Amino acid sequence: MKNDYIDINNLKFLLFDVHQTENLLKAARFEAYDKIAIDIFIDSVKTFADTALFPYIKEMDEKPSYYKDGRIHIHHQFKNMFNKGGEMGLVGALYDFDDGGLQLPSTIFHAAYFIMEAANNHVPGYFGLTAGAANLILSFGSQKLKDTYVPKMIDLTWGGTMCLTEPQAGSSLSDVVTSAKPTNDEYYLIKGQKIFISAGDHQFSSNFVHLVLARIEGAPAGIKGVSLFVVPKNRPEDNGELAYNDVLIAGEFEKMGQKGYCTTHIVFGDTNNCRGWLVGEPNKGLSYMFQMMNEARIATGRMGAAIASAAYYVSLKYANERPQGRKLNSSGQKNVQEEQTLIINHPDIKRMLFEQKAIVEGSLSLILQTAIYADKEVTSTTSEEKEKYHLLLELLTPIAKTYPAEQGIRAVSNAVQVLGGYGFCFDFMPQQYYRDIRIIALYEGTTGIQSLDLLGRKITMKNGKALELLAAEIQETVNVANTFDGLKPFANTLVQNVGVVQKVITALMPHALQGNYERFLADATIFMDFLGTIIIGWQWLKTAVTASQALKEGYRNQPEEFYESKIHTMKFFFTYELVKTNGLADTLMNNRELTIKVSKDIF
Amino acid sequence: MKNDYIDINNLKFLLFDVHQTENLLKAARFEAYDKIAIDIFIDSVKTFADTALFPYIKEMDEKPSYYKDGRIHIHHQFKNMFNKGGEMGLVGALYDFDDGGLQLPSTIFHAAYFIMEAANNHVPGYFGLTAGAANLILSFGSQKLKDTYVPKMIDLTWGGTMCLTEPQAGSSLSDVVTSAKPTNDEYYLIKGQKIFISAGDHQFSSNFVHLVLARIEGAPAGIKGVSLFVVPKNRPEDNGELAYNDVLIAGEFEKMGQKGYCTTHIVFGDTNNCRGWLVGEPNKGLSYMFQMMNEARIATGRMGAAIASAAYYVSLKYANERPQGRKLNSSGQKNVQEEQTLIINHPDIKRMLFEQKAIVEGSLSLILQTAIYADKEVTSTTSEEKEKYHLLLELLTPIAKTYPAEQGIRAVSNAVQVLGGYGFCFDFMPQQYYRDIRIIALYEGTTGIQSLDLLGRKITMKNGKALELLAAEIQETVNVANTFDGLKPFANTLVQNVGVVQKVITALMPHALQGNYERFLADATIFMDFLGTIIIGWQWLKTAVTASQALKEGYRNQPEEFYESKIHTMKFFFTYELVKTNGLADTLMNNRELTIKVSKDIF
Repeated sequence: MKNDYIDINNLKFLLFDVHQTENLLKAARFEAYDKIAIDIFIDSVKTFADTALFPYIKEMDEKPSYYKDGRIHIHHQFKNMFNKGGEMGLVGALYDFDDGGLQLPSTIFHAAYFIMEAANNHVPGYFGLTAGAANLILSFGSQKLKDTYVPKMIDLTWGGTMCLTEPQAGSSLSDVVTSAKPTNDEYYLIKGQKIFISAGDHQFSSNFVHLVLARIEGAPAGIKGVSLFVVPKNRPEDNGELAYNDVLIAGEFEKMGQKGYCTTHIVFGDTNNCRGWLVGEPNKGLSYMFQMMNEARIATGRMGAAIASAAYYVSLKYANERPQGRKLNSSGQKNVQEEQTLIINHPDIKRMLFEQKAIVEGSLSLILQTAIYADKEVTSTTSEEKEKYHLLLELLTPIAKTYPAEQGIRAVSNAVQVLGGYGFCFDFMPQQYYRDIRIIALYEGTTGIQSLDLLGRKITMKNGKALELLAAEIQETVNVANTFDGLKPFANTLVQNVGVVQKVITALMPHALQGNYERFLADATIFMDFLGTIIIGWQWLKTAVTASQALKEGYRNQPEEFYESKIHTMKFFFTYELVKTNGLADTLMNNRELTIKVSKDIF
Repeated sequence: MKNDYIDINNLKFLLFDVHQTENLLKAARFEAYDKIAIDIFIDSVKTFADTALFPYIKEMDEKPSYYKDGRIHIHHQFKNMFNKGGEMGLVGALYDFDDGGLQLPSTIFHAAYFIMEAANNHVPGYFGLTAGAANLILSFGSQKLKDTYVPKMIDLTWGGTMCLTEPQAGSSLSDVVTSAKPTNDEYYLIKGQKIFISAGDHQFSSNFVHLVLARIEGAPAGIKGVSLFVVPKNRPEDNGELAYNDVLIAGEFEKMGQKGYCTTHIVFGDTNNCRGWLVGEPNKGLSYMFQMMNEARIATGRMGAAIASAAYYVSLKYANERPQGRKLNSSGQKNVQEEQTLIINHPDIKRMLFEQKAIVEGSLSLILQTAIYADKEVTSTTSEEKEKYHLLLELLTPIAKTYPAEQGIRAVSNAVQVLGGYGFCFDFMPQQYYRDIRIIALYEGTTGIQSLDLLGRKITMKNGKALELLAAEIQETVNVANTFDGLKPFANTLVQNVGVVQKVITALMPHALQGNYERFLADATIFMDFLGTIIIGWQWLKTAVTASQALKEGYRNQPEEFYESKIHTMKFFFTYELVKTNGLADTLMNNRELTIKVSKDIF
């Protein structure tokens, strides 16, 4: 049933029909699960979201988290949310059974979090960051660190965070200055400040486990000298008591949106008594942290798609209930005697809704596609296979973070527009989602940074191997599409687009080869927009193929209209969105160097 | 000097160099003014904006207008702003000297309001609506109405509003139900509710003069039965006293942005004692109101450009002060020993700033271009000339409202992005401008409605005469551009674009001729985006032509870099923005009818 924030049938269609998630369950790692078990899990998460999360999203905007007397205070309903979420195993969903986890596929994990974020995007970050932090300890930490911290994190007794950003460094992690001083004991003394720490503190966890990037005294400059430490707010003593670890909560950043999700300023070692425990080897902190950051990037894109989903269904509902205006008759006039029509009957409203639907469902499909590759990497039995899926995951990650963030803004803006003046008023939800989603393009590396990663690293790695593999994946979809006459023209368009990608890269690569990296990467963000749009086009063709098969072969869990709607929305995406890529290609291939060869004083 | 929200040199360059405003002053109507006088006026407005408006914009967001005990309360600083604004004659700036006005050109009026809105967009609406309301009375009201109301409105002793929207009708003015019952006296009894009334009430005016659309009992259905009334909150008695006129302030709409500018809900005739005085003839209310609405549309676009201007200069300043990251060397690495560079030196930051600059200055140029046509219509001596400028004004008005609104959102979003995480925090201005500007695409007819007006009325009127005239105007610019080798390629591109416009219209018109108006107008909003972008391209070419002439002929009020910067930004607009129009044209010429031939249940 469609409800106020998500269409669960669409989610299951993408999971089981488009992305064939059931195949994952054949792998030994997931053999404990079958489709029925997954269905039950998804449905239980939906019930949790309906009853415990969605009812409080507006309140969280009206009663933001705040700083008082040295700690952060968040909405009182979080207590119940953390208890239930902990019980349901949502934090440890991905971990091995042996570590107390559910050992679920990443794809199912993301599906579950998508539901929760669509219901209330202020909440799941508290789960997700704790999950990511505990996972870092599980992956790279000592047995003692695992035993000490992970069990209490899995049930959310303790919260977890990642602490990267510093005031003077921002996104430039080379410039992290937080220091770690070795002691004769097993711990280091940590000193420094971290800002923009999501879920950094609140009244409902007795302790917080911060995963902190810091520099061991004498370490090399730059990222090569950054190490990773576990720094608890309160350190567990041998007697089991918790002792304050000199982790000072200095304040809360007041934000335009996502106000229930706190963003804190933390000072470590204000009185030189902050102990941190090294994770893994010295100076490898960033490589460890990247595991968490890559997951967090997909999670951030997922959150963007989820917010856009919620905004879409609010505006769809309104458009189905609000009468205004009339259709034009054959002389271009309106018959004012007639009753007003519902606004959803106006083509421009339909256009705005299709644009939202195309962005929301296309983004979700990309998130799941990326998660599938993550699962296949884990379950692959040969090293070639592992590498293939690893490269595909690496390539898609910055896009899965950025497309939902950037295009999600546009989708939610449409939701505001569909409601007209009401969309701008606090009595209605679109204005809140509009504020909430704007952070997504900033979290976990801005769009600019994701784009540098895409063009500067992912496209060039292994001489373009990842893009080759992706082209092959796309070609597979195209081949099946070509077995349906109605899909052929769209399959051809997509093939042409893939050709243009090659053309663009051929035009850009020489700059890199000549060592002119600034030129090579100057329009990386345009390239992100360009390639991201084509990849969503691929996801939509894939969706239309699945829908066409369902209609043809008649294995249907949904009414015909459901599948027709997917094919129609694919056509919309190709007609209104994919057409933009040629213009972007022209921009990418221009040789005017307008953002490079001018001084900062030109403005 | 550039400061925190505007570049006054750019404004004067556009006024006097690009748009040759001085020529307007030759007309008899404006002979009281010369360039020096205009300069003094502009500078005085800038001083007013610097000292009285800009310092309070953040406070107005933090202390929004609110409803209490039957009236609206606005920020206490408005008292001073209204006094000074009244003294300066800003309300009556356009009126004849005989009516107590300054008899200034519309172009100068818009320039002045642009300055004020860039400084504090929550304020000038109070002036502008009063100006528009008084202007309606001056244009169509009886001598008695003029004498009674206009003098007190000009000095802002009384406020003025326009009351169109009703809960059940929204933008569909055919469905206005507010009633006007004739009496044996000269007045009518008004009864009905109006919502979203900007500047509808506050503690700093002793009275409000509402221009209300209502239906005289027995009037024809639809817009043909709508009349215009002056309905004061308190009616002036013969003894000079004010008597309450049964105009009830029912509440304030709490908005996401522009919180200092109140948006009220007004109930007329709750106790059947609300008197209204007919303006002009019965059933012609909408045609009168359109005069005000057309001015208000240009004013709304101007406000969008102004907000985007303020956001641009905030982010430009930040980019010039914030060090982060380093340039890549020839092996694609960063030298971490080096100091961090200012972020403005990163190409992607430059790109975001150029995008803002191109949108802000291009939009302002379009606003002034539109105002020039308005002035020329007024001062034309022949009926052919009058018609020419009238048609050009009609054609550009919906675009001047919409381009700055829609693209302004994108520009301000860039400002948020340039500041990174800080851009999303309340301690910095971009997030406020981001919320403020979102209303612009909704005020005065949404983007969808402006687009229907553009394609459905303005393009088709007089068999496309307006577009012909516009093409001729563009060709004039192209001809001069072709005298500069450096501009030729861009002139050619613009000519090609104008050709595509013809192609698109040729593809669409048959639907109208066959009476399929729904199909003809289905993608009107895409057409708006398409034509609007080309028109801004024209404005940029015009700007570059003027800059090139200045550099060649050496009449310079500014350093060379100033003119170079204009030419460079023109190139940026053509390379990054104008290229998008071909994709939009493809969408416009598609025959898939995706938003028409599907039921509302497809979603």
